[in-house]
Amino acid sequence: MGQYSIGVDLGGTNLRAAAISAEGKMLGKIAAPTDVSRSHAELISSIAAAIGQLRDSLGRENLAGVGVGVPGFIDMDKGLIVGSNNIPQLEGVPVRAEIEGILQTPVILENDANAAALGESWMGAGQGVADQILITLGTGIGGGIISGGRVLHGYRGMAGEIGHITVVPNGNPCACGNTGCLEKHASATAIRSMALLMGLPVTEARDIYDLAMRGNPRARMIFQSMGEALGIALATLINVFNFPLYLLAGGPLSAWQLFAPPMLAEIEKRSFAYRHTTPRIEAAKLGNEAGLYGAAYLPFQAGS
Amino acid sequence: MGQYSIGVDLGGTNLRAAAISAEGKMLGKIAAPTDVSRSHAELISSIAAAIGQLRDSLGRENLAGVGVGVPGFIDMDKGLIVGSNNIPQLEGVPVRAEIEGILQTPVILENDANAAALGESWMGAGQGVADQILITLGTGIGGGIISGGRVLHGYRGMAGEIGHITVVPNGNPCACGNTGCLEKHASATAIRSMALLMGLPVTEARDIYDLAMRGNPRARMIFQSMGEALGIALATLINVFNFPLYLLAGGPLSAWQLFAPPMLAEIEKRSFAYRHTTPRIEAAKLGNEAGLYGAAYLPFQAGS
Repeated sequence: MGQYSIGVDLGGTNLRAAAISAEGKMLGKIAAPTDVSRSHAELISSIAAAIGQLRDSLGRENLAGVGVGVPGFIDMDKGLIVGSNNIPQLEGVPVRAEIEGILQTPVILENDANAAALGESWMGAGQGVADQILITLGTGIGGGIISGGRVLHGYRGMAGEIGHITVVPNGNPCACGNTGCLEKHASATAIRSMALLMGLPVTEARDIYDLAMRGNPRARMIFQSMGEALGIALATLINVFNFPLYLLAGGPLSAWQLFAPPMLAEIEKRSFAYRHTTPRIEAAKLGNEAGLYGAAYLPFQAGS
Repeated sequence: MGQYSIGVDLGGTNLRAAAISAEGKMLGKIAAPTDVSRSHAELISSIAAAIGQLRDSLGRENLAGVGVGVPGFIDMDKGLIVGSNNIPQLEGVPVRAEIEGILQTPVILENDANAAALGESWMGAGQGVADQILITLGTGIGGGIISGGRVLHGYRGMAGEIGHITVVPNGNPCACGNTGCLEKHASATAIRSMALLMGLPVTEARDIYDLAMRGNPRARMIFQSMGEALGIALATLINVFNFPLYLLAGGPLSAWQLFAPPMLAEIEKRSFAYRHTTPRIEAAKLGNEAGLYGAAYLPFQAGS
């Protein structure tokens, strides 16, 4: 057998780990609930246990390394989680050193949205494209920027905070302190909040989508508004990066036919670079496995 | 004598060329008016003549190469100016090949704003910082992004169009097709347009600044508005790039004490990454020589 690596995606609700070959073949996968009421030591040991289980089944000798995607800001030099809204008990914890201490294997940390972007660029919709951006629409909006085949980190690992691009200067308030962040106008949560404002009888994004598809004009206006907000942010990214590929992921993608037309109209209007270079704007492919692929790719990339 | 290179900054009103040593010492400088009524062949030959004059005085044997900064979009592979608002007769012209043909010396083309950013990173306010962004406030707003010490080009050379970031979704119209572009709310031209809207008796940016400094409340509101617009764009750049340094250049910089407080307040509010990593936001140093330094640095960088 050739080399493999282990990727971990630590989410607020699930801990998942996968063993993936250097060719991108999924060799094994484990999932367990993330109990956020547990202490940080318990969380670390459950991560280590999942990695250890995969390593035991596939053998230590061919393990290229371990990558761990975590929700939050990471101090890359120190292997430390600086801040995490979803798993606050990991804040300030030297996650890398603690996992390495248990497993005696080198670990690479990465922000979960960055890992997902890297995963799509390795084995997903962005294969073969060195420069691309992934935007994930969920409870919030996460982003990852791949420049020259690698994650763009910025000097403190906080690059790619696409969900906090201002799209409506005096728009909805965001817990980050801003008003009008993209994620307050285009995430799954934003869709639900607009349903409340429009007096719709449903509050789940999926039901709002169904209503819109059946022709409900209020429900359709929600996706119009969400598409416009996304379009403003994408136009800015295209003007600033001029990359050839922008990928979108997450539950709201099922409403593509509703939000894409207004999104593309905004981009067309707001980006000279878009009109002249027509980059691709497409759906990502790997779903919630993107982060696993990306995390697993980290050791291969570091070794290359 | 050690190696030197020749940098050219081709503007809508002036053609300037400079010979600069590998250590960044200015060895000689030439300026001539750009007569935009001339044909493209005449423009090219005047560029070549300026380069030839510097080369004759310093000698061919130590010339590392020639860099030319031009206002417009460049197809980097072909050495072609794809579009230029200021010097339309160069559109579609293979500028690189034509200058090389006359001088028999390799030429590197670069967008003028990118060249200025590179110049500041080489010998200006950004020395020693690998990742930085320069924003130049003039008639319009230009930008250049330096990532890992090099200009970020994007796949068709159109990256760094910071002047066309949307800061007011339904704001002032822009010839690019958008509404609310940064350059329509924060350039020297935008300051002048606001003076008209405010019924001020002066129409030059410098005079509007003087009025504001003498306490005129309407003139002060202009710099308040301009600072807020800049702050929105900078917050987005900081959230997306998390770079350690952002430089501002251009005439309106003399009004720093008027526009910087509202600019920084907007950034503080709109960027979590700014509050947590406090990047530097400073005035550039090289003035209108930044583009010459950057253009001259191109051959050194290509050879390194």
